[in-house]
Amino acid sequence: MKKLDDSKDEIIQIREYLHAHPEVSFEEKNTAAYIKKFYKNLDCSVRDCGDGYGIIVDIDSGNPGPKLALRADFDALAVQEDNDLPFKSQNPGVMHACGHDGHTAYLMIVARSLIELKDQLAGSIRIIHQPGEEVAPGGAKSMIEDGALSGVDNVVGVHVMTSMETGTIGYHTGETQTGRSNFTIKFTGKGGHASMPQLSNDAIVAGSYFVTALQTVVSRRIDPFDTASVTIGSFDGVGSFNAIKESVVLKGDVRVMKESTRKRIREEITTIAHGVESMFKVKCEIDYDDNYPVLVNDETLTKRVVDSIKNADIPEVTKVFDCGVQQPSEDFSYFAQKLPSTFFYVGCMTDDHANHPHHSPDFLMNEKCLIIAAKAVGSFVLDYLKLENN
Amino acid sequence: MKKLDDSKDEIIQIREYLHAHPEVSFEEKNTAAYIKKFYKNLDCSVRDCGDGYGIIVDIDSGNPGPKLALRADFDALAVQEDNDLPFKSQNPGVMHACGHDGHTAYLMIVARSLIELKDQLAGSIRIIHQPGEEVAPGGAKSMIEDGALSGVDNVVGVHVMTSMETGTIGYHTGETQTGRSNFTIKFTGKGGHASMPQLSNDAIVAGSYFVTALQTVVSRRIDPFDTASVTIGSFDGVGSFNAIKESVVLKGDVRVMKESTRKRIREEITTIAHGVESMFKVKCEIDYDDNYPVLVNDETLTKRVVDSIKNADIPEVTKVFDCGVQQPSEDFSYFAQKLPSTFFYVGCMTDDHANHPHHSPDFLMNEKCLIIAAKAVGSFVLDYLKLENN
Amino acid sequence: MKKLDDSKDEIIQIREYLHAHPEVSFEEKNTAAYIKKFYKNLDCSVRDCGDGYGIIVDIDSGNPGPKLALRADFDALAVQEDNDLPFKSQNPGVMHACGHDGHTAYLMIVARSLIELKDQLAGSIRIIHQPGEEVAPGGAKSMIEDGALSGVDNVVGVHVMTSMETGTIGYHTGETQTGRSNFTIKFTGKGGHASMPQLSNDAIVAGSYFVTALQTVVSRRIDPFDTASVTIGSFDGVGSFNAIKESVVLKGDVRVMKESTRKRIREEITTIAHGVESMFKVKCEIDYDDNYPVLVNDETLTKRVVDSIKNADIPEVTKVFDCGVQQPSEDFSYFAQKLPSTFFYVGCMTDDHANHPHHSPDFLMNEKCLIIAAKAVGSFVLDYLKLENN
Amino acid sequence: MKKLDDSKDEIIQIREYLHAHPEVSFEEKNTAAYIKKFYKNLDCSVRDCGDGYGIIVDIDSGNPGPKLALRADFDALAVQEDNDLPFKSQNPGVMHACGHDGHTAYLMIVARSLIELKDQLAGSIRIIHQPGEEVAPGGAKSMIEDGALSGVDNVVGVHVMTSMETGTIGYHTGETQTGRSNFTIKFTGKGGHASMPQLSNDAIVAGSYFVTALQTVVSRRIDPFDTASVTIGSFDGVGSFNAIKESVVLKGDVRVMKESTRKRIREEITTIAHGVESMFKVKCEIDYDDNYPVLVNDETLTKRVVDSIKNADIPEVTKVFDCGVQQPSEDFSYFAQKLPSTFFYVGCMTDDHANHPHHSPDFLMNEKCLIIAAKAVGSFVLDYLKLENN
Repeated sequence: MKKLDDSKDEIIQIREYLHAHPEVSFEEKNTAAYIKKFYKNLDCSVRDCGDGYGIIVDIDSGNPGPKLALRADFDALAVQEDNDLPFKSQNPGVMHACGHDGHTAYLMIVARSLIELKDQLAGSIRIIHQPGEEVAPGGAKSMIEDGALSGVDNVVGVHVMTSMETGTIGYHTGETQTGRSNFTIKFTGKGGHASMPQLSNDAIVAGSYFVTALQTVVSRRIDPFDTASVTIGSFDGVGSFNAIKESVVLKGDVRVMKESTRKRIREEITTIAHGVESMFKVKCEIDYDDNYPVLVNDETLTKRVVDSIKNADIPEVTKVFDCGVQQPSEDFSYFAQKLPSTFFYVGCMTDDHANHPHHSPDFLMNEKCLIIAAKAVGSFVLDYLKLENN
Repeated sequence: MKKLDDSKDEIIQIREYLHAHPEVSFEEKNTAAYIKKFYKNLDCSVRDCGDGYGIIVDIDSGNPGPKLALRADFDALAVQEDNDLPFKSQNPGVMHACGHDGHTAYLMIVARSLIELKDQLAGSIRIIHQPGEEVAPGGAKSMIEDGALSGVDNVVGVHVMTSMETGTIGYHTGETQTGRSNFTIKFTGKGGHASMPQLSNDAIVAGSYFVTALQTVVSRRIDPFDTASVTIGSFDGVGSFNAIKESVVLKGDVRVMKESTRKRIREEITTIAHGVESMFKVKCEIDYDDNYPVLVNDETLTKRVVDSIKNADIPEVTKVFDCGVQQPSEDFSYFAQKLPSTFFYVGCMTDDHANHPHHSPDFLMNEKCLIIAAKAVGSFVLDYLKLENN
Repeated sequence: MKKLDDSKDEIIQIREYLHAHPEVSFEEKNTAAYIKKFYKNLDCSVRDCGDGYGIIVDIDSGNPGPKLALRADFDALAVQEDNDLPFKSQNPGVMHACGHDGHTAYLMIVARSLIELKDQLAGSIRIIHQPGEEVAPGGAKSMIEDGALSGVDNVVGVHVMTSMETGTIGYHTGETQTGRSNFTIKFTGKGGHASMPQLSNDAIVAGSYFVTALQTVVSRRIDPFDTASVTIGSFDGVGSFNAIKESVVLKGDVRVMKESTRKRIREEITTIAHGVESMFKVKCEIDYDDNYPVLVNDETLTKRVVDSIKNADIPEVTKVFDCGVQQPSEDFSYFAQKLPSTFFYVGCMTDDHANHPHHSPDFLMNEKCLIIAAKAVGSFVLDYLKLENN
Repeated sequence: MKKLDDSKDEIIQIREYLHAHPEVSFEEKNTAAYIKKFYKNLDCSVRDCGDGYGIIVDIDSGNPGPKLALRADFDALAVQEDNDLPFKSQNPGVMHACGHDGHTAYLMIVARSLIELKDQLAGSIRIIHQPGEEVAPGGAKSMIEDGALSGVDNVVGVHVMTSMETGTIGYHTGETQTGRSNFTIKFTGKGGHASMPQLSNDAIVAGSYFVTALQTVVSRRIDPFDTASVTIGSFDGVGSFNAIKESVVLKGDVRVMKESTRKRIREEITTIAHGVESMFKVKCEIDYDDNYPVLVNDETLTKRVVDSIKNADIPEVTKVFDCGVQQPSEDFSYFAQKLPSTFFYVGCMTDDHANHPHHSPDFLMNEKCLIIAAKAVGSFVLDYLKLENN
């Protein structure tokens, strides 16, 4: 703990460096190099992992005991920063607008602290520095395929939360963040002159009726007590005034809290698309991708984490509470699918309580949250790997 | 002609008698009996014809020559008369609101006149008193199947027209009145409790999307230069607030001016209904009836009729003009499908030019039109069957 | 308890009598007379209450203490029974298909038992025999206005549940059953001949587009984590094939778990209806009725009830469990709006586990549930009004 | 005539030169320079006219008489030629795919011939070389505003027609080619995260319902006997999967044969767009442009042209016939709005009868049509300006 307090400024420096040098998902080459350099002369093993720039850092206490993984993501978003900060993004059109810079910064310092006192611990710690959280298929998947969880017993992750006051820590058990699917549907009709519709099949008309029928997925085909959202986020029917459009491409997004619902929605969307196909005599091509699972937090592990945090009496922490379900999706869910895991939230609201939402050009993080994240995770690790317990 | 002038009052008496005693389509038992009684002692042959109360009256001149058919319909409508007339309908809910009483009256008197002077004519005349014009399948069809046109060369019919001034006679050649199809579509889903839509297939939702998609038949699938109308006249989804409706029954009406268009519309409606079937997982039963054909007037015959009328210099006639296409459908079209025929229009607007549209409870006929119809048809018959011409 | 065991057969007799003589909501004249007769010579005060056939029975122990209300509903449904039972409904088209006969039977016997041992109790008991639960506005509302809750501290109600095994008792706290609104919307356009749509405003078309747009209420305008259902249960556009329909009448049903959602849905439906009005130049009349509130069970009271039941060690009870939210609406919610109340569920599934759902013509109740309901409620009353506690 | 026969090869050379050097509408700088150079040393007056590269050539006979205008357009299309021709377009992405090269070529030669024999004629001839026919607002409009019709009595134009056999000449009187309107509608809602639709107004949903409702313009709001087409040719709702789209831009095209219908359609589209506005709480901006009028050919002038052509007994002409209405729009209609004018069609189908439609990359013109156009127009001019007639 004292170690962490001593590194408070360093966490912020790392975070601000990363903030100034953001890289979009799956292109985080320099970020990964920066992280690896940090571990260079530390007593741990470092390896690349997965299809992207993922990094695994293993810290072995030399003592018997369980293996705990800690995960932080490090990709940024294709957003142009609209803040006036000394460490403002130097990469045009790219911004750490979700706080992954903070996740990485706190975890690097926690890792170094644990390396320093590893002799006093049981088992081992695996640090997972994950790329590409924001964009399907996500960085977690290929890291897992490449052995990121081999020998691991549990995984813990953290997200800073601008909607929660700084000082608060939120958790939830069971289904916690939505699962997500994405799809692309192309309807191909027959183009032609606007004055002769009878010779064409108007793809814009077909696509529009599809969108209206699609509303019945949520309104009629899903239990009102269940959670479901279906959005067409892109309707590309760009053409010229006076020609009937031959084809349109629609891109959609699905959110659910149950895998069975995800399955039913996929069936229903496919059903409706094929209905449009026969109704308007167009051809329909569907590319459907079930990506991030519902994030399910393990009840036992979550309780252990919460108890550790509460028992640690961290002075900066004002409240530890069940914050309920969260609408966004998270590819930490892939880890949680494999092993009992938990993902919790550290409030990062600015002191003036102004609204700086995640993914917006004016996203702001209250940097006080970083030491809180570090201490909260640190406390749990110390409990979990306490020598006498293992 | 003089004969007809002498019978002017009698035409009106017959018309008013029929007006007071209307019978709906295919139930015109008393009307048929009345007509047959009229011919009882006249020198002609009378026989029943067709599935309904149709009557054929043959007048043979004994001289060689062509056979000309004259057709008048005699059914009334299920309309409650809202006029204050001495000869107002005595049958509640039934009314001669289309003028078929007048058609029958003028033709009975023309027939009697022709019987009286048949020795001076060539060939023969067939009077077709037709029931059930208003309601599919129409009375014409089964009369034709029962020989109504055997030996006949041409058919002529007349309709009184409240939208045309009395004194005017309208004609048109080629496609003149719309063809009609009717259909009934039943969508069957699965009923259930309003609070559990995911367990049902909502037939009202399926039916409603069908109606919106149906609009594309006319808007996108038919040549803009062509004529087409598709109407859902009945949507029976009557149920209770709090239950999801298991099935709905829709009734539709189609109007066209080309048989090829009728065919394409039938295909398109069927296509859309089957699209709804797969889109909403409902069952669809279609009962599709192509009934009245497009009425096509023969150009040559129409010209002969018009010339005869013009040459006759009928004092009551103020104008003979091409009145263009007419929106309603007419089962005279079945006769015109078989033989070169023509169907023309005799203005019957009231002298005050007020609006008393056909099929409305306040339909009114200017009875002066009846002698005009009689003289117009009479003139043509005399020309057509003139001894020296044949 | 023993008292109740002794009356086991009598409960069943009462229930079967009521089952054989069902009366639909707000017409339960004979049922009410039957109930009142039962109390005639018992030591309690009985009075009529509310707009319908509601009955209040007050049992005063003479000792100081709280006043507890127990409520049972007694109306039947307009359903034709399709069971072969000795006590099958003798009223054609009417059936106790929801189990209210059982509710009334068990509560009558509980009431009589309590009257018999009232000296041993503190405070007083109010028995609420409520009519018209099935149909808006519900019988509870006017009973409350007529003083049914005056002086009462808490209200407890029970529903038998065919979806739960007999022997089980289900409860839930907080929002437990959906709130409900109903609405009627009439769209009036302009009728006309099917061949001349440009002169009309087609009300079936307007109504159908309304139904499709209505789907966006649930799909786009409500939080996916919230509960909402909007159903058009009746679409009355019955007309004839060949006429454009002048007006249609739609009846709708709304279910929610939050009053704020109910409010937003009402606004959104109104918004969409007015959009249709301007889009199709039709007139729209809305009659919107927010009726049954969300049923909210008081957490403290529910815990007390559950504890009493568990402590009573009722031999017939196999499980007491949190059964979660229930989709139907219940006008017990009006009581729960006024006072801390709880409504719990007594399993009544038949022994063969066959499916005999509420409101269906083959609804069946396992009559063993009745003694369970009686003992469960009885146990709680004894605890709640125990002399030493009060 | 002989003069024209002698220039047959020259017409083709000019046409092929223009074909090889096409320029898109309103950018025809070099084409205009080429045309002006042609007239340089001829006895006529030449001036620029209108906002674009329009050219007026006046040929004055010196004798009294009427003034006749002949019009040819000279712009090309943004189409990449897909023919293998010695004179294939040398400008990438630009092609004379509608035949305007031929129009200009034949008219230049006709003009020169008339200049040569102008002493034998009455009155004067105005040659109108018009730019920008293909693209609204069209080149005709500003030329008229700049005096192109001052003193003119009649205007005659020609279009080659690949759908008509070479040798045939088609004409029609009255409404002949559709009028056109174009519109752009932008719906602006509120963007947001795909998992929180209740906080947004989804512009793609609003736009899609608009498209479905728009179908009722043609299907329900226009006389089935009238001509109307409404197309959304562009639906720009391009966005990302997982964000709700803030705004969409739709571009539409309207075709009519009556100005009153154009007016009604504009009203109806506006009505529907405002309905969507209130239904989905989006903002709607409409930019509506009524551009090319219905082309109405004067009956008297058309008859004179047809008679001249027939009387000329042009050996290459096989048929002169009423070809009926034509679906595309034409800005010659602006001339026809101002003065009695006629626009007729010269077949240019290839000898193998293959399909090479206008505006397609493989459009082909049978060059034999050019001398036919020249002789047909020449014959009419000689008749119209015959000295003895004037």
